[in-house]
Amino acid sequence: MTSNRRILLAERPVEMFTESCFEVVEAPIPEPGAGEAVVQVQYLSLDPTMRGWARDEPSYLPPVQLGDVMRGGAAGRVVASNNPSYPVGACVMGLLGWQEYAVVGGNSGTLANVLPDGIDLVDALSLYGSTGVTAYFGVLDIGQAKEGETLVVSGAAGGVGSIAGQIGKILGCRVVGIAGGEEKCRWVVDELGFDDCIDYKQGGVGAALQEACPEGIDVYFDNVGGDILDAALEHMKDFGRIVACGMISGYNSAERPPGPRNIFRIVTKRLRMQGFIVIDFLPRFPEAALQLGVWAAEGKIQNRVHVVDGFLAAPSAINMLFTGENTGKLVVKL
Amino acid sequence: MTSNRRILLAERPVEMFTESCFEVVEAPIPEPGAGEAVVQVQYLSLDPTMRGWARDEPSYLPPVQLGDVMRGGAAGRVVASNNPSYPVGACVMGLLGWQEYAVVGGNSGTLANVLPDGIDLVDALSLYGSTGVTAYFGVLDIGQAKEGETLVVSGAAGGVGSIAGQIGKILGCRVVGIAGGEEKCRWVVDELGFDDCIDYKQGGVGAALQEACPEGIDVYFDNVGGDILDAALEHMKDFGRIVACGMISGYNSAERPPGPRNIFRIVTKRLRMQGFIVIDFLPRFPEAALQLGVWAAEGKIQNRVHVVDGFLAAPSAINMLFTGENTGKLVVKL
Repeated sequence: MTSNRRILLAERPVEMFTESCFEVVEAPIPEPGAGEAVVQVQYLSLDPTMRGWARDEPSYLPPVQLGDVMRGGAAGRVVASNNPSYPVGACVMGLLGWQEYAVVGGNSGTLANVLPDGIDLVDALSLYGSTGVTAYFGVLDIGQAKEGETLVVSGAAGGVGSIAGQIGKILGCRVVGIAGGEEKCRWVVDELGFDDCIDYKQGGVGAALQEACPEGIDVYFDNVGGDILDAALEHMKDFGRIVACGMISGYNSAERPPGPRNIFRIVTKRLRMQGFIVIDFLPRFPEAALQLGVWAAEGKIQNRVHVVDGFLAAPSAINMLFTGENTGKLVVKL
Repeated sequence: MTSNRRILLAERPVEMFTESCFEVVEAPIPEPGAGEAVVQVQYLSLDPTMRGWARDEPSYLPPVQLGDVMRGGAAGRVVASNNPSYPVGACVMGLLGWQEYAVVGGNSGTLANVLPDGIDLVDALSLYGSTGVTAYFGVLDIGQAKEGETLVVSGAAGGVGSIAGQIGKILGCRVVGIAGGEEKCRWVVDELGFDDCIDYKQGGVGAALQEACPEGIDVYFDNVGGDILDAALEHMKDFGRIVACGMISGYNSAERPPGPRNIFRIVTKRLRMQGFIVIDFLPRFPEAALQLGVWAAEGKIQNRVHVVDGFLAAPSAINMLFTGENTGKLVVKL
């Protein structure tokens, strides 16, 4: 390649991302400045939280500015370097953005982690990257799930949810997923070993939770918010914990949707609902990656990845997260 | 007196309590059975949570059954006893219910705590009772408020809120109240020493919070829920804590009102929202009562009580909690 294609945020989405939200531009392949390295990007990570980054409002990261490269996790290989920490040939991952070549280190403002030789980049971006690490700290630190407890995971067939539930099984929890469609539910139970999975598209999530968790929910790992959070609140055990990881059901609403009617259950059931952002756990990423790696090597965790081909597919592929078309972690292969 | 008047729950309220919700009956003054004592009730405690007890749905205590004496905290004096722990003449408090004479101990199913000789029964029922203790554990254990932090308290002129804010001041917090009406706000600031108080009846609570807490809220002690919780969510600092003590704004709704639109802030701001019921802290009541007593003796906490006269006033007086007519703790004097 002789040029660096980059996808910019051109317009803020009102509801779902549309074609006009993005613009593809070509730039020269960058040269590394002092202390910098240039990474050829090979995979983009697509994550629900990216919809929030496109909003013009303060959040845990500043909004992506119009005209800037779309922010996103990615992994690739160093092709030029003025930084001994990023040797040519090394694989790295970080918030490299939607571009074919990214500058890291030095004054670039972009940090990337070097990956072990021979690691699968897709595994790195999913299981050992923010997806797996989110599941890890969500279940263990925020949810404090323990052996014998009932863990319910929404978005169970998604990247984070599918790993969160498997971690629950490793801990000795009874794990009940909530996912959209029979096929996803079957995968979650038959392949990942969840004890049960509720198809929310059949309706009646409350009754299904009552049946699947007759003694109530100890830990609810919430990726979706909305009506499913509402149903979970009604079925929590006293002193249960709600891991507020994401609320994807509301991400594409032009206006903030109403909150759960059962929120008063937080008082009467003495619940703890706690939000977290995986970035806060940065100093502990190695701990999580190591443990997840060992579990994967022992065959205790499966990592399913939905790969979409071609850099230019990213703008449409990201909506698959919101329509539920992906199963497992969604990535784009450049 | 020769008879024991008792107020029964006759009909469940749909919205506010109405006259037809209660029925007054007369019964003989009870005689104590083995291990029992009879208490002549002198003060009833009126608390927002009692509205929940009248609902026919599972909660942290079973619903009061139709035809049963209305459940309620109360304090009085032992007038007959077959239990050396409850000597005649001793003052006690507990869930004695809406009746002039209550049986405690033995097989009565009612526990009561004996109070120190000479203690003011109204102080016992408010500051050293569940009201003060709720404020104590809410601020310290659930909210973990610390010196230099900003504590916002809604229902600031109510029983729990007025004490919660004063505890915040003792800890060295900047304390901002939210109350209904200029007079309550003035009392909270001028008499109780809050740093500021927002009159929610003026509207614009969000803007007022922004002005009163320009760097955001560390701990929000919520007694009201609804729109004020929604506004607080938007003004929390990252890693802030929400003490979910009560949500009185919704207690008289026939249908559960929608939850806060800003609930997603729990994720992006990494908030911890935690509910609690003071009963769970029963083994630690002595700790709280002792500390509150010392603070009161040192003049650091003021305990204002709104006393309504006459047993039969209880059914109408309880609605003052919901219309905001009381300032400080609301009790009925028999």
